[in-house]
Amino acid sequence: MRDIREVGIGVVGLGSMGRIHAGLAAATRGARLVAVADVNEAAAQTAGDEFGVPHFLSGGELLKVSGVDAVIIATPAETHADILVAAASAGNHILCEKPLDCRLDHIDEALSDVAAAKVHLQVGFNRRFDRNFLAVKEEVDASRVGDIISIHIVSRDPLLPEPPRTIGDMSGLFFDTTVHDFDMLRFLTGSEIVIVDVQAASAVHRQAEIDTAVILVRMANGVIGTIDNGQAAHGYDQRVEVFGTKGAISMGNEIVSTTSFVDQSGSHRPGPPYFYPQRYGESYARQMESFLGCIRDGVAPLLSGADGRAASVAALAAQRSVDEGRPVRTSEIR
Amino acid sequence: MRDIREVGIGVVGLGSMGRIHAGLAAATRGARLVAVADVNEAAAQTAGDEFGVPHFLSGGELLKVSGVDAVIIATPAETHADILVAAASAGNHILCEKPLDCRLDHIDEALSDVAAAKVHLQVGFNRRFDRNFLAVKEEVDASRVGDIISIHIVSRDPLLPEPPRTIGDMSGLFFDTTVHDFDMLRFLTGSEIVIVDVQAASAVHRQAEIDTAVILVRMANGVIGTIDNGQAAHGYDQRVEVFGTKGAISMGNEIVSTTSFVDQSGSHRPGPPYFYPQRYGESYARQMESFLGCIRDGVAPLLSGADGRAASVAALAAQRSVDEGRPVRTSEIR
Amino acid sequence: MRDIREVGIGVVGLGSMGRIHAGLAAATRGARLVAVADVNEAAAQTAGDEFGVPHFLSGGELLKVSGVDAVIIATPAETHADILVAAASAGNHILCEKPLDCRLDHIDEALSDVAAAKVHLQVGFNRRFDRNFLAVKEEVDASRVGDIISIHIVSRDPLLPEPPRTIGDMSGLFFDTTVHDFDMLRFLTGSEIVIVDVQAASAVHRQAEIDTAVILVRMANGVIGTIDNGQAAHGYDQRVEVFGTKGAISMGNEIVSTTSFVDQSGSHRPGPPYFYPQRYGESYARQMESFLGCIRDGVAPLLSGADGRAASVAALAAQRSVDEGRPVRTSEIR
Amino acid sequence: MRDIREVGIGVVGLGSMGRIHAGLAAATRGARLVAVADVNEAAAQTAGDEFGVPHFLSGGELLKVSGVDAVIIATPAETHADILVAAASAGNHILCEKPLDCRLDHIDEALSDVAAAKVHLQVGFNRRFDRNFLAVKEEVDASRVGDIISIHIVSRDPLLPEPPRTIGDMSGLFFDTTVHDFDMLRFLTGSEIVIVDVQAASAVHRQAEIDTAVILVRMANGVIGTIDNGQAAHGYDQRVEVFGTKGAISMGNEIVSTTSFVDQSGSHRPGPPYFYPQRYGESYARQMESFLGCIRDGVAPLLSGADGRAASVAALAAQRSVDEGRPVRTSEIR
Repeated sequence: MRDIREVGIGVVGLGSMGRIHAGLAAATRGARLVAVADVNEAAAQTAGDEFGVPHFLSGGELLKVSGVDAVIIATPAETHADILVAAASAGNHILCEKPLDCRLDHIDEALSDVAAAKVHLQVGFNRRFDRNFLAVKEEVDASRVGDIISIHIVSRDPLLPEPPRTIGDMSGLFFDTTVHDFDMLRFLTGSEIVIVDVQAASAVHRQAEIDTAVILVRMANGVIGTIDNGQAAHGYDQRVEVFGTKGAISMGNEIVSTTSFVDQSGSHRPGPPYFYPQRYGESYARQMESFLGCIRDGVAPLLSGADGRAASVAALAAQRSVDEGRPVRTSEIR
Repeated sequence: MRDIREVGIGVVGLGSMGRIHAGLAAATRGARLVAVADVNEAAAQTAGDEFGVPHFLSGGELLKVSGVDAVIIATPAETHADILVAAASAGNHILCEKPLDCRLDHIDEALSDVAAAKVHLQVGFNRRFDRNFLAVKEEVDASRVGDIISIHIVSRDPLLPEPPRTIGDMSGLFFDTTVHDFDMLRFLTGSEIVIVDVQAASAVHRQAEIDTAVILVRMANGVIGTIDNGQAAHGYDQRVEVFGTKGAISMGNEIVSTTSFVDQSGSHRPGPPYFYPQRYGESYARQMESFLGCIRDGVAPLLSGADGRAASVAALAAQRSVDEGRPVRTSEIR
Repeated sequence: MRDIREVGIGVVGLGSMGRIHAGLAAATRGARLVAVADVNEAAAQTAGDEFGVPHFLSGGELLKVSGVDAVIIATPAETHADILVAAASAGNHILCEKPLDCRLDHIDEALSDVAAAKVHLQVGFNRRFDRNFLAVKEEVDASRVGDIISIHIVSRDPLLPEPPRTIGDMSGLFFDTTVHDFDMLRFLTGSEIVIVDVQAASAVHRQAEIDTAVILVRMANGVIGTIDNGQAAHGYDQRVEVFGTKGAISMGNEIVSTTSFVDQSGSHRPGPPYFYPQRYGESYARQMESFLGCIRDGVAPLLSGADGRAASVAALAAQRSVDEGRPVRTSEIR
Repeated sequence: MRDIREVGIGVVGLGSMGRIHAGLAAATRGARLVAVADVNEAAAQTAGDEFGVPHFLSGGELLKVSGVDAVIIATPAETHADILVAAASAGNHILCEKPLDCRLDHIDEALSDVAAAKVHLQVGFNRRFDRNFLAVKEEVDASRVGDIISIHIVSRDPLLPEPPRTIGDMSGLFFDTTVHDFDMLRFLTGSEIVIVDVQAASAVHRQAEIDTAVILVRMANGVIGTIDNGQAAHGYDQRVEVFGTKGAISMGNEIVSTTSFVDQSGSHRPGPPYFYPQRYGESYARQMESFLGCIRDGVAPLLSGADGRAASVAALAAQRSVDEGRPVRTSEIR
């Protein structure tokens, strides 16, 4: 690999997340945004103009640009594996948005290519870089709760006009949202997901697609997890509670101000930040810095391809649990 | 039935709950404690002396005492059905501690006798009389949360020296604790439990008996419930969160004082009341008043035998889910 | 004095507080309500009928009734000293509502007679019996905050149709409300009030009478206190914060339920209990028990005549501070 | 004035605040850090090296540097007026840290020169740019609390090794800390300070200098304010409560994470950010952007020299109140 001082970055996929990554690449010390790409020409051109870099209509074209050391993949989930393969074969380091991909065979091929190319691959489970989740993790690692008994995760989007986009015949909810929560269970417990058991509904949009799921999980070390996913009229609801033999630690929502109003009807506080750009901005910046540090220092990313694979396997198990109305073992997914 | 002005009450079973009921019967306007009974002679005599009433060694003997209009059953769960039958045949009204009983055939026999005797039977799901749960119920009934999507119940005992007492080959946890939560799901949704799906462990005591269970429930109207049961080092943890299409309402723990201490290590508040006598004292008093009102006014209790039966059926389904490692429909329990 | 087993109690003054005391005297083990009195015949008769005891039109008549061991004075403030003198000369123990009286010479005469009669006199600063204030006091006494530096008391009534009743040419606010807060400063610091300095207004009712006062207080041990009095649209606001060299302890409002509702406009909790009967009911019961215990055991009440006198002196200093627009030393009040 | 596109900034005074300003000038779009100065050569050189700009030993030398459009003054308070005069005569816009100065005659001379030079002067009351204080201000302006009756400000530093540095024979506390709170009272009420009345102590350090002050304030529109200043073992305590005729709005502390830990001793949350760089970082950035916007658009700063003067007058009144033991009118300060 080249001796890298300022990491040249290309961003593929310029939706909301891609533009966040592009903005960070342009603003972070030690990084330099080199090029952007999107299949939508207008989106590509707009971002290119905004950041003053050339734009392309595909990852393949972007990868040929000189000065690209690392690629950030923020395209739709089902395209990730292909771009991973191309980026690895071009010798680029990769920060891949979650999920790694939705098809296990594609994931395994891509991970094999990445390993062969000896490039760094980091998966975008940004919540591991959020100061609140990190505070929970620190307490857990310090054994303050004792042995973990159970974990309850609330992870709901604000009310959106549609359910999450279905991918193939699989629920978009599990690959869009739940992969974050599966990863958080693995992060907090240091253990693997063994059983996934789902009750799902279209409670909000009343359509064919699932927009609500409550998931019962069993970890290899015996910890029992619950995940509550959906869309909430009360906003982006991001909480976790870890219950252990010596105590419990919970993480509440950030609130947009510390004010509290009281009148004859009671007390009133504002709600949480609207959605992920508002809630998790700081964690995206830290994620970027961590990724750059790995490249600079030649150390493995905190979030590997294996982490991305495990979350996708759990999402596939969740889908099967819905289809078959039973608890599904992750060992059944292959 | 006699014309009743002051209801004469006999209490059978003088453990912690029986003594609470006896104390209330002695102190509540419109009630008069007439007699107490317990198979443990010392317990019977102590309570009899304390309250200045005759004591007996069995419900059968107590039922013969003149002036008993109503019987409160607070004996071990597996004896409830027999005492119910005896009390009904004696023409007494009955306040029966939860659970109604642990065996479905016994329950059905007892309910049949109660119905034939035309006495009032109220089951002791006291949480329906707690002001906090009632405040949740009021908000739900006023449609403030919109349509209910999911409910999360945390219902943990403080750390106790042992797991709940196993009854026959069934987990004491489901009959001791979870029946309250099954009833709360029914109360809040106005719907019936259809599927019960359990992950259980002996996470605290590391013995054969279950002391921890996380339960995924599906209601007939589609609502998805989760129940988190166990024993907690941090104390008697009694919370519920109802999540709906328009908002969510949560009920937190009572706290023993409204003080908050801050020092260089952060802020610190006291914990919840120790256990049910401290936390639910007010609700037991209201439950008693409601029971007396039903007798006085000749109206049906808010909590019927059918309510007690439904919770026991769900507990039996929970036990089967543990035994067979699968979701169990309540329709399978017969 | 007679050998007392069940203390016979007469209540003089049957407004809101007097009826609370009468109800407690009737319901508390160890007490027996013997008679009630009020200058308003309808009020006297209603209460007498409700509690099944004889009623009178004056304290003087009530004191002649056989079986009265103790008198509870709940008449308007400016009548307290006269009734104290009469009750003491009749050899009755006395629980006197705050304030002790509004005129210092009357107070001193009454205390002299009480001392000569060797009866117990307890002054009704019930907040010393409230579990939340007691929790603050315990933390302070355990030196958890270190040395106290300052104390901030918020003590506001709910919005009422009028300002507190003016007594003579003195503000009703200081004798009605602030005496509680002056006493609390003395209770928490164990020190005496030295300087009282007031900014006052008629901010709510826009009348001649003061309904709002913010008071800066200096204690003999150097502690600086602030008291915020008035009427609040948001309800009965009862808080205290004690700030010390090692930390701070604050006491928040009780809230009518532990529920919290969230929707798109934020989170919402109910308000505090409406007013003193709802907020301080438990403390009145404990105050009564403490008073009965003193009589039974022949020990001095926790709240003496000197405590009542000190609070009235501070109230007089507050009035003078308003009149003269300057800090007033309590040593100037004589 | 030159046509300015990127504002060239010189920073005079490189203590903690000066370095914060220098860092922001270097990082904010639309600004360019041109030079730094400090009487301490090591401090000047370190900052110059860090930011890659020339360094000087005085404001006078820095003002001669070409390309300086605006000067940020962050030297000790008693030097502010002289540098203001010099910067104004050099035609530079000025962002001056609080307080404007400590001597009224110096302030008036400086403001006169600034007015004559027609440069923009913004005073560094950054809290007006803090999102939490702004949220309070918005609610107040929207009349949500009705008419303001009283305001309570808690504004305490963390425990520091010394009391605030005394300036001349005046308390450092009033010019270091209280000026922020005086400005906040003016900001929230839109009214002027009329009476300042102080109880002060050296409660923490037990030295000659005041480290603790509780201040009673009367505003021209009748609002009564209290300010609680000092140093707190529990950390940087920054709160305000505005009490009005229709409700009250309070602003609590920011907390370093949203986690809450519960164990048998109760519940525990972390404390507030350590001190102003951690707590108010965002507000300094917004303050800088507002200042740049004023220069760019030729509009008057939100915080004028008159605002700075008013806070200093109130601080002088506070000092006189301590010296003379009485309420002091700001009209006495001339």
